[in-house]
Amino acid sequence: MPEAPALDPRLARALVEVVGADHLLTDPDVTAGAAVDWTGRFRGATPAVVRPGSAAEVAGVVQRCAAEGVALVPQGGNTGLVGGSVPLAGEVVLSSARLAGVGDVDPDGGRITAGAGTSIAAVQAAAAEAGWAYGVDWAARDTATVGGSVATDAGGLHVVAHGSTRAQLLGVEAVLGTGEVLDDLGRLEKDATGYDLSGLLCGSEGTLGVVTAARLRLVPALPDRALAALGFGSWADAVTAVGLLRRGLPGLEAAEAHGAAEAALVAGHLGASPALDPPPAVTLLVGCAGHGDQVDALAAAVDGLAGVTGAAVADDGARRAALWRHRESMTEAISTLGSPHKMDVSLPADALAGFAEEVPARIAAVAPEARTWLFGHLGDGNLHVNVTGVAPDDAAVDDAVLGLVLERRGSISAEHGVGTAKRRWAAEQRGPTAMAAMAAIKAALDPAGILNPAVLL
Amino acid sequence: MPEAPALDPRLARALVEVVGADHLLTDPDVTAGAAVDWTGRFRGATPAVVRPGSAAEVAGVVQRCAAEGVALVPQGGNTGLVGGSVPLAGEVVLSSARLAGVGDVDPDGGRITAGAGTSIAAVQAAAAEAGWAYGVDWAARDTATVGGSVATDAGGLHVVAHGSTRAQLLGVEAVLGTGEVLDDLGRLEKDATGYDLSGLLCGSEGTLGVVTAARLRLVPALPDRALAALGFGSWADAVTAVGLLRRGLPGLEAAEAHGAAEAALVAGHLGASPALDPPPAVTLLVGCAGHGDQVDALAAAVDGLAGVTGAAVADDGARRAALWRHRESMTEAISTLGSPHKMDVSLPADALAGFAEEVPARIAAVAPEARTWLFGHLGDGNLHVNVTGVAPDDAAVDDAVLGLVLERRGSISAEHGVGTAKRRWAAEQRGPTAMAAMAAIKAALDPAGILNPAVLL
Repeated sequence: MPEAPALDPRLARALVEVVGADHLLTDPDVTAGAAVDWTGRFRGATPAVVRPGSAAEVAGVVQRCAAEGVALVPQGGNTGLVGGSVPLAGEVVLSSARLAGVGDVDPDGGRITAGAGTSIAAVQAAAAEAGWAYGVDWAARDTATVGGSVATDAGGLHVVAHGSTRAQLLGVEAVLGTGEVLDDLGRLEKDATGYDLSGLLCGSEGTLGVVTAARLRLVPALPDRALAALGFGSWADAVTAVGLLRRGLPGLEAAEAHGAAEAALVAGHLGASPALDPPPAVTLLVGCAGHGDQVDALAAAVDGLAGVTGAAVADDGARRAALWRHRESMTEAISTLGSPHKMDVSLPADALAGFAEEVPARIAAVAPEARTWLFGHLGDGNLHVNVTGVAPDDAAVDDAVLGLVLERRGSISAEHGVGTAKRRWAAEQRGPTAMAAMAAIKAALDPAGILNPAVLL
Repeated sequence: MPEAPALDPRLARALVEVVGADHLLTDPDVTAGAAVDWTGRFRGATPAVVRPGSAAEVAGVVQRCAAEGVALVPQGGNTGLVGGSVPLAGEVVLSSARLAGVGDVDPDGGRITAGAGTSIAAVQAAAAEAGWAYGVDWAARDTATVGGSVATDAGGLHVVAHGSTRAQLLGVEAVLGTGEVLDDLGRLEKDATGYDLSGLLCGSEGTLGVVTAARLRLVPALPDRALAALGFGSWADAVTAVGLLRRGLPGLEAAEAHGAAEAALVAGHLGASPALDPPPAVTLLVGCAGHGDQVDALAAAVDGLAGVTGAAVADDGARRAALWRHRESMTEAISTLGSPHKMDVSLPADALAGFAEEVPARIAAVAPEARTWLFGHLGDGNLHVNVTGVAPDDAAVDDAVLGLVLERRGSISAEHGVGTAKRRWAAEQRGPTAMAAMAAIKAALDPAGILNPAVLL
């Protein structure tokens, strides 16, 4: 582990004044867990973890650190995959652990306020209690937090139906780099009064402000569901099918895909046969929700698709859960093969199949010993390219994949963010005008440059 | 009419070099129409209307004007209602008329690119041709443009289903105040690579950049529709019904409301009896779309509502069109009574009914001779408060309405923007931290301060 820099005693005293001695953690045994991401690929060191309990305390922490020129990394559930919430340059970690909790539910309007440290699962539960649902979901729901999801504009399983986190976000409470508290929690669905500062903070990865709470829109809780695994002979057939399902299947809420080798891997990991046996070249998991018989609706939509080589429809909760378990175990199954390189990319619909067909060869060309694993959210053009069998610091594989993404006019980060891992590629994708505009905005809102300075820019 | 300032001859020559002599219009007879909004309430003067034909030409115009410190007002269809696209301080008008046209439709992905000067109706037609629909619609569809709708984050009739313009916006091409061309047209639904600059420009009312084109997401074209006019005894009953319909009616795509006097006014204007005769205290127009019998679906959802005093269900296209014609003639009918004050506000669901009940009395208290007209998009908490019988420059009425909005934690501009008309109130709603952040961002992206300097900030 890299050595932690020492915390200046004057700053330490100032921070204790703000948060109390119990919430400035400096014992390396205690802070070590906050210095590394869960995959183990990004490992840093920190002089301290500070745990403010309110927006005012966060403002105090930011002001003290700005005055001393000491950088901060905001950290929620630390489930990120791009090194964006880890103190890689010796930053102080600002934890959202004490900013958790749900408050102010609007049952007629379908809105909820949640502290930055609230888990996504807790938001989902509170939404359900109010007779609504939260439109965002992914496997790390019990650990990932509202603050992190806003900071990274997290996507997940239902983007095809409800959009990413930014689409749920009415407004934030956040402490800007200036140390001021921005209170935009009162923003409404239809609110054209001035710049969308909350939307700007969403996806800025903690470089402009520290999100302390969010006001989120809810979506209708739909009572009936169906899920089917569909087999296709090629990525092209699966992409065409997704385009038709998006137009023709009411209530489409997920369209996930993976290849044959991936199906076999996860089946082996779970000790169960794959959903379609033998696994087809591409498996598409299609879910829909609504009122009334969803199995019928799904079957009718699937009936009109070309190229379906096999289908398994889950018509009860247990079968749906089994299919989802397969899908959600993909990351875990791949991890048993070592620490993978993870590239999270999205492509325009007309480039998606070509990318999926070509990427294994591009990787093999620079790393013949590598194995490529492809899965993702085909409904919104998002593929997770995982590569095992290469050293963690081997950049050639990442370069091969991300270079192909840009050739095909895609995005080098679909839902994980840029972090420290993809900064060079972000600049290449966005271009000099966008990067200059981003730098100018960063300087405007974080003039001391202390908020997550190692990521993105 | 105010007198137009003269255009500096050196700047005139420079602009002719950029756009050609045919596209720098300085004859006051020709430019007069661009100096006033369609309601006639906002009347300015301009030395010139410049009509660039490409993003590069827009950049040339912005650069020349920035060098001379001459301010610009971008103008699309000039259908705005808050004086945001009118040269009230003698600005040069930058017209998007030659930036019209639809290109690059992605039929599988459901995406379309349109120039800033393209009408909303043209986008809708191109979407339909590709087998999709555009999620935004409002009465001014034939005149209002993509550029203006992005600059103001325009809402309209279907926000309850698809969100406002920002929710459709994948990315923009725009010329920033620095004179640089930002090309974000390649952004995708799921794209977490850096700040959402397009979303920031959306709703910034031309103060940060001139939008030259937009990449828009499309939504499924749904084959079946139903529409019903429902009567309620109070705004409270109508608001409760909307909350239940949002949760329980699949495919809800519009929930519009108006009072009894408004129903009578528009019926008189059209020479037809209102949908529900006699008009109830509140009429709610509910539309849904989907696959299969929508009249059944709508009837089932309405069946579960309390407080419905009457209902008229439109089960064919002609009856739906007649109901919509009533709704869309509201603005026109009110205009026959004189030039109204128009306040476009949104409220949290739990404050909406109280606001609607109280606002006529608040207005009467400061303008006993005034008449108050209330209609709007109840589904997303948006009411249009129109007031007739008061002088155009009488600020007391606006102050009474917007003051009540802020008391009830609402937004003083739901979908029309701030423009010049509501600047003071925008500052009050957003608060000093947000306004300072907005000013800092403005200075970062428009350092010469020439883009629509009279609005918003």
